Amino acid sequence: MKAPDRLLSLLRQENRFVISAHVNPDGDAIGSTLALSLVLESMGKEALVYSRDSIPRQYEFLPATGRITDRMSQEIAGGSVLVLMDCNMPERAGLESYRYRHSVVIDHHETKSDFGDIAWIESGAAATGLMVYAIIKALGLNITKEIAYNLYTAISIDTGTFRYGNTSAEVLSAAAELVASGADPEIIAGHLYEKWDLSRFRLLVETLNNLDVEDGVAVCHVSDEMIKETGARPEDTENFANIAKVIDSVKISMLLREMPGGVWKVSLRSKGEFDVSGIAQQFGGGGHKNAAGFQIRADLHRAKSALLEKVREKHFSK
Amino acid sequence: MKAPDRLLSLLRQENRFVISAHVNPDGDAIGSTLALSLVLESMGKEALVYSRDSIPRQYEFLPATGRITDRMSQEIAGGSVLVLMDCNMPERAGLESYRYRHSVVIDHHETKSDFGDIAWIESGAAATGLMVYAIIKALGLNITKEIAYNLYTAISIDTGTFRYGNTSAEVLSAAAELVASGADPEIIAGHLYEKWDLSRFRLLVETLNNLDVEDGVAVCHVSDEMIKETGARPEDTENFANIAKVIDSVKISMLLREMPGGVWKVSLRSKGEFDVSGIAQQFGGGGHKNAAGFQIRADLHRAKSALLEKVREKHFSK
Repeated sequence: MKAPDRLLSLLRQENRFVISAHVNPDGDAIGSTLALSLVLESMGKEALVYSRDSIPRQYEFLPATGRITDRMSQEIAGGSVLVLMDCNMPERAGLESYRYRHSVVIDHHETKSDFGDIAWIESGAAATGLMVYAIIKALGLNITKEIAYNLYTAISIDTGTFRYGNTSAEVLSAAAELVASGADPEIIAGHLYEKWDLSRFRLLVETLNNLDVEDGVAVCHVSDEMIKETGARPEDTENFANIAKVIDSVKISMLLREMPGGVWKVSLRSKGEFDVSGIAQQFGGGGHKNAAGFQIRADLHRAKSALLEKVREKHFSK
Repeated sequence: MKAPDRLLSLLRQENRFVISAHVNPDGDAIGSTLALSLVLESMGKEALVYSRDSIPRQYEFLPATGRITDRMSQEIAGGSVLVLMDCNMPERAGLESYRYRHSVVIDHHETKSDFGDIAWIESGAAATGLMVYAIIKALGLNITKEIAYNLYTAISIDTGTFRYGNTSAEVLSAAAELVASGADPEIIAGHLYEKWDLSRFRLLVETLNNLDVEDGVAVCHVSDEMIKETGARPEDTENFANIAKVIDSVKISMLLREMPGGVWKVSLRSKGEFDVSGIAQQFGGGGHKNAAGFQIRADLHRAKSALLEKVREKHFSK
């Protein structure tokens, strides 16, 4: 993977940057934007990091999070190069109402958007953080400990800490250099995976208590009542849909979460060749082969039945 | 890390080897012995892999497991070099009753034993698998896909797939080369972490249902009755002691498992600076700072109380 020369030239020539990723930022979004801002600063540039939404508590340990701002003005935008990361349209960042001196996209998601004076899209890259790493290598810059922490976290999150299919030799080589530059894998893993509130853990146990497994499909749900009783937050269900995948016989795992107004948000996860994106599309949703979702208005029992029927039809019919 | 010249010379000169790790073999033991046997075979040697115990089902996917034997004779031993791996005394492998042409130890555990004509002990190495990797590099040999799978699995298990404190830049660099040589991180992680029987999962849920958290300490238990009711096996509790560590406030996690004769086997796990080895020693057990254990004869309620008191006294007294 090589950063385009035009992008490198622009980073060298320009002096003021506004860096932003998508709303509801995840570890790759936060780590990539912070790392790039640190890189540009080390080149003597001004780099403002914008995020419409506050960053999740688990990422507060990342160096330089203090510089993230949710304020923007046309005055700042007009004199700056917008660098949109881990997404490819300014709407995704909540930055569509400003006009910029130039605009750049650095993203590893496939897109049909043609936004950006320079758009560097690497759909094969495991994380946007790896693209920042490639920029640093191309510019011949030093990787400080602060940059290393941010990029290692970005790469960890998007590869399941080196367990997903996107974990290539290139990913692990970059990770090795980031550790040599000061990133601490144990500390980072601790922040990513061992910072649950007790209420979230209680919610998980309640959820596992209603988990059913049948014919290769696991189904469980989180009701509003369960969230209230345990004192957890709705966003605490993140990743719950994956947990039943530890079971050998489970090929598809489904989580239904109650939303306001009698709607259930359904998260589908699958292993290897089992494709759940088609099922999500049938119900008006979308996603990727192994991770998709949609919303359904029905009572819980009916929603589960309808869903199980579709899954069996598609994947387990004889 | 560099393999000793004397060891390399012996591997080059000799022609028949018996390779073995400890009884109750884990992923590092199995992966390291199989990988070294494949290396020696590629050098035109005979290499027999001995294991007294059968290998756990989750490791059956490893290439070359078919060559593991539980048969040994003085005739074979007498004409062979014993290579003892991931342990340092022949008793640990169940091989103490034979005499060998020469004996070698390759281990990353600290020891006071002086067994072995050549004993290569690297207590700083994250896994014995990394020592095999160092041997391959020193001998200038090719890493086949079969070797790569075995070594990547060995390293994965002993570093928590790159989440533990022993995950160094050297570890990640080796992992990168193993992936380049054909190891598939997703397939390996799937075998290591997503092959649970449903009965094991049911046992976990039952265990989480009795988990208590108080003052930074999590306690749960697995009774004989729970194992019978879920249809799980006693060894299925492996790693259960770690699970409560996902909770931010939990610094020490304890699992009590019922054994025959009114005895409870206690597993202690801790985060970072919290040292549980001293507590285990007080009860006549042992272990490391973050992972220790012992056995106690008492009823469940009393065992839990006695333990909680000791832990509070040591770690949380004001």
